[in-house]
Amino acid sequence: MRSSVLPLHWIGGIDDGYLEMLDQRKLPDREVWLVMSTAEDVAKGIENMVVRGAPAIGIAAAYGVAIATRNAVEGGATSILETVTPKLERFTETRPTAVNLTWALDRMQEALENHGSESPSKMVECAFEEAEAIFEEDREHNLAMAREGADLFDNDSKVLTHCNTGGLATGGFGTALGVIRAIDDQGDLEHVWIDETRPYLQGSRLTAWECIQDNLPATLITDNMAAHFMSRGEVDAVVVGADRVAANGDVANKIGTYNLAVLARAHDIPFYVAAPVSTIDLDTLSGDDIPIEERSEEEVTHVGDTSIAPDEVSAAHPAFDVTPAEYVTAIVTERGVVEPPYKEGLAWIAEEYQ
Amino acid sequence: MRSSVLPLHWIGGIDDGYLEMLDQRKLPDREVWLVMSTAEDVAKGIENMVVRGAPAIGIAAAYGVAIATRNAVEGGATSILETVTPKLERFTETRPTAVNLTWALDRMQEALENHGSESPSKMVECAFEEAEAIFEEDREHNLAMAREGADLFDNDSKVLTHCNTGGLATGGFGTALGVIRAIDDQGDLEHVWIDETRPYLQGSRLTAWECIQDNLPATLITDNMAAHFMSRGEVDAVVVGADRVAANGDVANKIGTYNLAVLARAHDIPFYVAAPVSTIDLDTLSGDDIPIEERSEEEVTHVGDTSIAPDEVSAAHPAFDVTPAEYVTAIVTERGVVEPPYKEGLAWIAEEYQ
Repeated sequence: MRSSVLPLHWIGGIDDGYLEMLDQRKLPDREVWLVMSTAEDVAKGIENMVVRGAPAIGIAAAYGVAIATRNAVEGGATSILETVTPKLERFTETRPTAVNLTWALDRMQEALENHGSESPSKMVECAFEEAEAIFEEDREHNLAMAREGADLFDNDSKVLTHCNTGGLATGGFGTALGVIRAIDDQGDLEHVWIDETRPYLQGSRLTAWECIQDNLPATLITDNMAAHFMSRGEVDAVVVGADRVAANGDVANKIGTYNLAVLARAHDIPFYVAAPVSTIDLDTLSGDDIPIEERSEEEVTHVGDTSIAPDEVSAAHPAFDVTPAEYVTAIVTERGVVEPPYKEGLAWIAEEYQ
Repeated sequence: MRSSVLPLHWIGGIDDGYLEMLDQRKLPDREVWLVMSTAEDVAKGIENMVVRGAPAIGIAAAYGVAIATRNAVEGGATSILETVTPKLERFTETRPTAVNLTWALDRMQEALENHGSESPSKMVECAFEEAEAIFEEDREHNLAMAREGADLFDNDSKVLTHCNTGGLATGGFGTALGVIRAIDDQGDLEHVWIDETRPYLQGSRLTAWECIQDNLPATLITDNMAAHFMSRGEVDAVVVGADRVAANGDVANKIGTYNLAVLARAHDIPFYVAAPVSTIDLDTLSGDDIPIEERSEEEVTHVGDTSIAPDEVSAAHPAFDVTPAEYVTAIVTERGVVEPPYKEGLAWIAEEYQ
């Protein structure tokens, strides 16, 4: 196993290099790295969840655009921007809920446009620089966010989390799991409860794996056990990530998050969302405007290749849900902690912050 | 497939017959019937969840005691009662939460004691008659309970249920799923949402299978999707079974039930419990006194033989949870519907009812 848990790496130089992506579908059983040397490889990797996690798919798409730029130049395209633009659209369509994807694509497009009059090789260089910056900034932001979040916690904290929001989902360290790591670093972590996170099992497959690598004191539970442990005083706080935070503070995140928010409220437990500013979408006014990705029924009726339901059954698979702002105690970002009322706080932190 | 969904059958005569038990762990893939000709066979079948569901394990244990009685007589035991008593204790220990098991064992013990002075063959006959009565009465009670429960529903009802509470869990027809069948029979069922019910997947494996057999309009969801569909107005009521109802109305049931009760309350949706009077335990004053069975971690970290988590991870597996009475809208029994305050209503229906 590599000591640094990252979802992807660039291997080699700009001209002859390629993106290596950890196939998260195979974890924790096997550590398989896939080689991606075209934009379509990367788009399929995002679509099929080789890589997942809102910040990580933004980073992957950024590298995908850089690869598209390089390949356009190598292919002798007359207009690089015209050749790359359809790839931007292709990436936008891969997964609709997380806004980090659009945010990263917008940054890449702007970088290309800003250098549109320069030499092709300079444009390629700039594209890779921008992708790398998105990658590295995400890790820095996560470290800052983790410190901000950990400040909210005291001695002997028992924290419940959902899905995977660690190094695998980001440019490193993680969002919600980054906060949990920082709580541990400051000596205040008593226990982590890991929701297994059906249907894709990001909790049992990925978060449990990261917790073991970091020696965090963790216990895996099925998603439906959360209320039981809350009622027994075993959970002091819930910390989750986000795929999109609307201007009013409504939060789209992995299916099951809203469930936890309601349970936390009923048990008087704080419910924190940890997300970089790139996840805040001031153009989306409320959760009602966030598109919820519907994924295949098979991901519910099968675990890996194993069928767990009759063939004839219908299944539903909304991949995300929306937690209304009223259930969110605070939103932790790299620029500080936003508390209700969210509209003003989010606008300030996303636009006015200096 | 057999047209009648039942968890077990007695095959042959008393002297040479045996219990055939459907191995519910193999459903829906394969319909495997296991032959059980000793009390220990049956005890292991209960312990290892070949058969599950509070009423069904009571019925299975009753047949187990009848088999123990027959085998004691065939083995030439000097005192039948003394030979059978350790078997009663063995059955009591198989699964601690469901009270129907103790209830059925108490009935069997009483039947044996009442006929203790009769001939050995008469005692065997009485034991089998009692087991058969427990089996048949359960089906009758479920039919009555279903009618009582269906009266609570109007046109176009969208009902969410958890675990399996159908024919497979009972002596036939089912408790909560029996109510849902009766809602359909009276033309008022628009849709059933089936919680897959991790970790054992009784919903996806068993309830989905029963719903398909009965052509009920059903959709399978992961347990963490319930709140999402509730918030969208897609759930009119939750109906679940019970493993034990305490004197104050607290309800022990499959892990995840309390979760649903809290969500139902937050969305102003009624939360109904359907359980035969044999599930009401007036000797258990409140949910705090109900023993919660802890099952193996492997049932959480594996789906069938497939590992879904790192080998080194710790997992928790409380098999049941307790829903406080304040979350329960009504308890449906074969003798009528009990509403709060529960203490008086449950005492009356369990003891004074005529």
